[in-house]
Amino acid sequence: MAPSPREADPELQSEMNIVAEAVEKTIGHLLPETDLAENRLFQAMRHGTLSGGKRLRPFLTMHTANLFNVDPLRARRAAAAVEFVHCYSLIHDDLPAMDDAKLRRGKPTVHIQFDEATAILAGDALLTLAFEILSEPETHEDPRVRCELIRSLAKAAGCHGMAGGQMLDLIGETEEFDFGTISRLQRMKTGKLMAFACEAGAILGKGNEPHRKALCNYAFDLGLAFQVTDDILDVEADPQDTGKDTGKDSQAGKSTFVSTMGKEQARNRAEMLVHQAIGHLKIFSGRAEMLERLAYYVLERRA
Amino acid sequence: MAPSPREADPELQSEMNIVAEAVEKTIGHLLPETDLAENRLFQAMRHGTLSGGKRLRPFLTMHTANLFNVDPLRARRAAAAVEFVHCYSLIHDDLPAMDDAKLRRGKPTVHIQFDEATAILAGDALLTLAFEILSEPETHEDPRVRCELIRSLAKAAGCHGMAGGQMLDLIGETEEFDFGTISRLQRMKTGKLMAFACEAGAILGKGNEPHRKALCNYAFDLGLAFQVTDDILDVEADPQDTGKDTGKDSQAGKSTFVSTMGKEQARNRAEMLVHQAIGHLKIFSGRAEMLERLAYYVLERRA
Repeated sequence: MAPSPREADPELQSEMNIVAEAVEKTIGHLLPETDLAENRLFQAMRHGTLSGGKRLRPFLTMHTANLFNVDPLRARRAAAAVEFVHCYSLIHDDLPAMDDAKLRRGKPTVHIQFDEATAILAGDALLTLAFEILSEPETHEDPRVRCELIRSLAKAAGCHGMAGGQMLDLIGETEEFDFGTISRLQRMKTGKLMAFACEAGAILGKGNEPHRKALCNYAFDLGLAFQVTDDILDVEADPQDTGKDTGKDSQAGKSTFVSTMGKEQARNRAEMLVHQAIGHLKIFSGRAEMLERLAYYVLERRA
Repeated sequence: MAPSPREADPELQSEMNIVAEAVEKTIGHLLPETDLAENRLFQAMRHGTLSGGKRLRPFLTMHTANLFNVDPLRARRAAAAVEFVHCYSLIHDDLPAMDDAKLRRGKPTVHIQFDEATAILAGDALLTLAFEILSEPETHEDPRVRCELIRSLAKAAGCHGMAGGQMLDLIGETEEFDFGTISRLQRMKTGKLMAFACEAGAILGKGNEPHRKALCNYAFDLGLAFQVTDDILDVEADPQDTGKDTGKDSQAGKSTFVSTMGKEQARNRAEMLVHQAIGHLKIFSGRAEMLERLAYYVLERRA
């Protein structure tokens, strides 16, 4: 059984560390290196992907793939691709023209460590590399599966997904959004890539439609819960814990879950979403325990 | 027979216009529209792709596809994907952190018309959309072909291709490059995407290896010739003709073919490359006439 929401979960932490280490190894192998001048770009790509992080999305891909008995070597490639897309989005979101963040995971952001132009290119190159990895037979021998991965990732990351969500987020700096619009924004900006991270395991394992749907619904609720707790952490956490500048959203005048409904209501909403997320996993008859534990962790995290 | 290098070629111009119009229609269909707030992003994507341009890469894809009797509807989708990647690269290259260009094809660049953040996102979304289009069955019913298109495009656009070339280009603003390095830079920055534009037709038509190789070699020589004439135009053309700021490269202290070998030598080199490019097309026994004419056009263009 999964532990109760208020309990620490060292077993989950240990599993998260194991997955993070394995996927980071794959990321390291997939990133290029050279003695030539363009190595500056390659170093920026490494800085943007190998400077820590919870590796939440790779965890989702690895554990959903496991539900369908997918070869972990293949799952790790898909997990790395998802993480490349996530990291590219962070690099671009951190740029002066966007969130203007100087610190990420306790380290200088890519445009601070290198420069703006290099950061833009590093993001571009990581996004491109994600699609290259998914197109290769090493990810799956069936090209139909590879195409489905690519199409789903593109939809999750593109103008109706993550990029569109970031556009809304920027508009939200000057326009006040209601709860519905913030939820749609977050579903696009964070939820869709989380859903892909989960669905990728099912696609690799040729899972059936109800299983896929359950995982996507789990991911959307988890993603929204994650964002709500992110907004809470933004107003109350210590930058030492989160490794990034806090209070930035409220300073920027952005509509957040906390600014719209208050901290207490936001916390209640996060708890409700987490229980809803866990409900979707019933279809796996207890085999998705780590995914359940992860949902509880979202409520407890301090960073 | 193709006309001699010094002759005007109204037939080619007419064919280029026909292809441009057809591909622009496809581009218009493939781009999203909405009444919702994220339409700002969609408008920026339209501005960056539908504000004119020679549509050289789509021309290459349509005419190489034609050599293999590919359904033009499919070829147009691949051509649009290539053009999306080309346009994304222009939007990002024009940013203040890169070339800081205010004018493109006689119109304000995307970050001038909208803002920097929107321009970054529009580029990201166009790159992503290109892969989405190629992953769809409408592009080709064989998923193996779709995967090959995606993989080749990713390699052409990524850190060993266009993005890496742009990194070298930026380094070239402060470091002096010799002819060999500039050639490698241009092969990465421009040549590889041109080669993909040509190879895409062969991939769609399941062309054999010698045909593919011939088309790639043609594209590399054509692309380099195009870049050499671009450097010449940069120092001598009227911005009214080119629709963009001229003299920018020399002002930025960039090593160009003209700065390395002088204008006369550069012109000789361009002529040699064009004849070499045409030589690669012999394998098609005269059926690639429009591609031959296009190579001559590169020498004659004033914009």
